[in-house]
Amino acid sequence: MKDYSRASMVLHEELKGKIEVVLKKDIASQMDLILCYSPGVAEPVKQIANDPERIWDLTIKNNTVAVITDGSAILGLGNLGPEAALPVMEGKCMLFKKFGGINAFPICLDTQDKDEIIETIKRIAPVFGGINLEDISSPRCFEIEQELQTLGIPVFHDDQHGTAIVVLAGLINACKFLNKEISDLKVVINGAGAAGVAIAKLLKCIEIESNVCTPVSEIIICDTKGIIHKQRNDLTPLKFELLSFTNPNNKKGTLRDAIKEADVFIGVSTEDLLSTDDITTMAKSPIIFAMANPNPEITPDQAYAGGAGVVGTGRSDLPNQVNNVLAFPGIFRGALDCRAKRITPKMKIAAAYAIAGCITTPSRDYIIPDTLDFSVSEAVAKAVMDAYEE
Amino acid sequence: MKDYSRASMVLHEELKGKIEVVLKKDIASQMDLILCYSPGVAEPVKQIANDPERIWDLTIKNNTVAVITDGSAILGLGNLGPEAALPVMEGKCMLFKKFGGINAFPICLDTQDKDEIIETIKRIAPVFGGINLEDISSPRCFEIEQELQTLGIPVFHDDQHGTAIVVLAGLINACKFLNKEISDLKVVINGAGAAGVAIAKLLKCIEIESNVCTPVSEIIICDTKGIIHKQRNDLTPLKFELLSFTNPNNKKGTLRDAIKEADVFIGVSTEDLLSTDDITTMAKSPIIFAMANPNPEITPDQAYAGGAGVVGTGRSDLPNQVNNVLAFPGIFRGALDCRAKRITPKMKIAAAYAIAGCITTPSRDYIIPDTLDFSVSEAVAKAVMDAYEE
Repeated sequence: MKDYSRASMVLHEELKGKIEVVLKKDIASQMDLILCYSPGVAEPVKQIANDPERIWDLTIKNNTVAVITDGSAILGLGNLGPEAALPVMEGKCMLFKKFGGINAFPICLDTQDKDEIIETIKRIAPVFGGINLEDISSPRCFEIEQELQTLGIPVFHDDQHGTAIVVLAGLINACKFLNKEISDLKVVINGAGAAGVAIAKLLKCIEIESNVCTPVSEIIICDTKGIIHKQRNDLTPLKFELLSFTNPNNKKGTLRDAIKEADVFIGVSTEDLLSTDDITTMAKSPIIFAMANPNPEITPDQAYAGGAGVVGTGRSDLPNQVNNVLAFPGIFRGALDCRAKRITPKMKIAAAYAIAGCITTPSRDYIIPDTLDFSVSEAVAKAVMDAYEE
Repeated sequence: MKDYSRASMVLHEELKGKIEVVLKKDIASQMDLILCYSPGVAEPVKQIANDPERIWDLTIKNNTVAVITDGSAILGLGNLGPEAALPVMEGKCMLFKKFGGINAFPICLDTQDKDEIIETIKRIAPVFGGINLEDISSPRCFEIEQELQTLGIPVFHDDQHGTAIVVLAGLINACKFLNKEISDLKVVINGAGAAGVAIAKLLKCIEIESNVCTPVSEIIICDTKGIIHKQRNDLTPLKFELLSFTNPNNKKGTLRDAIKEADVFIGVSTEDLLSTDDITTMAKSPIIFAMANPNPEITPDQAYAGGAGVVGTGRSDLPNQVNNVLAFPGIFRGALDCRAKRITPKMKIAAAYAIAGCITTPSRDYIIPDTLDFSVSEAVAKAVMDAYEE
């Protein structure tokens, strides 16, 4: 893979910060000062004091999202702390603006204590219309997101749901292309972190009304020790809970055992785990999402040589890139526009179908829209708004 | 006074937020995505992880300030909470950018507990190169600012020091115009809140090296009960502490008693407290800063009728407006440019002299530079940088 380190460093050294805060109206006269600041600003202040809902009409809250991390799981690099996370969060804020027209501001927290993170987010919430959690390690990410669902504004952990939504979109179009039914699919997920768990929940329609969601037939989740099954005595409580809706026949063994006869492989793990031969053991024309970064669990060439029907990766230089940017800007755009109090499961499903629907005729190398297709976020925003029920 | 409420509401309704976050570089290609975000961003992340100081070179930290409030003392309106404070904080952020070229972002805290405020600010500090505290009520504002002085970035409560610095600047030029000496001045301050206390400390050079600061001869501080003196049994600990450097002769009585023979009246209180007759009881050609908002303690016309030498107010439609915007943008600009760990007393004095120095020949109606004179913040930034010693 090409090394972009040097070019990226040149860019970062030159920009010294990839985003900036600017005035929406220039201050050029005494009257500008008087109306934007003192004494004119007293009137909007009083109106909000009398009716807190007015904050949505008179301030940045209606179009502003905090991108919050504790730096505990930065990209694939691990726990490098809040300072090191800032370049990623700034990049994320760029994507929010470019793809969703949303003002996003990075908050890197100098604590990795779950309760302190929750408490701090509650305390800084008044300015924001939504909270995007980012690069927070599992299992804390689940609890933090869960406990903040009553905050009154959407709190969305993108590493979980963004990936899950785009994978579902890809799966919808892959089935369309291959003439398969979602409800028939036997799925293997390799990786039981934030993304793996969220994908499993979304594909099994956990906590989702059945009329908006078609669950896959079966999911088996593997971690580095192999298949997650009931007899394993090394499972965390979180992994044990996954068994309530995965591995119904309590299959045991390795990842290789798991994928035999499976229709779908979803990798959120590490590079180079599968071979062409492994793919030949799967069901006919299997669907492969090999999303390890920067290098996939198996390359498309290797997978197609083994009979794969469709292959997606996390790579921008390969077809069918699973990129969260197809999901989160539109999801927050839609949520802000309808002043949603949270992102419901129904909104996530709607987002996945909207992404899939951006491609009229899916083909092998085009089941997921292009990352730079700006019409996707608009379609997602509309679908998410329509799907919201308080 | 003209009512700007309606025009301000039209503006706020129309803008729906007075600031926005924008990209410093457009994302238009896959390569832009790769370099600004993933996978290119991994390299700056690793560099900061290896050397935390690199955050200053590679991210927004070098030019970003948080404008933080708890909404407990909004303008002159009182404790209206964090939501109601947002229009003011946004306005402040506009001034930071326009006058200092600084990215400022508002943080309105949903807590008014002193320890929680301190704790929260520490936790969100990594992204910021400085913290501007705003509209936090006394006496908590003193303790909060004090406890955050070791954070490693400047923490500056503008309601205290911004006002004090501009008052000192005005006093320097008023003395120049009236041929008075700072060291001869007997000063009365009416108001013992954040601004009053900070003005008293700055004019008496508290905690400041004597070689950079000339203290005034004497200060008497009044509150709503009159002169603060040793026999009052209603003094808060904070007000009692003020007696260590004010009211050396333990004068007692009312505000009117205090100003007899005084050279300077500084009002940070409420409108219409003094009359023309009161001014006649002061020393010859007294200096009057009547800064109550929106209406001063005495109007310039009334004060000049009583023999005032120079009058300043907080009003933009009158000469000699004491406006913090002359100070804070340049102070933070200078502090960020030299990566100051805190704003030292010496930097505050330097800022005051720099503001005063922007007027070559002070005159009665021109002892304080015009608020919209953008050269002031540059001069302040330079002076503040030169005055910084780690």
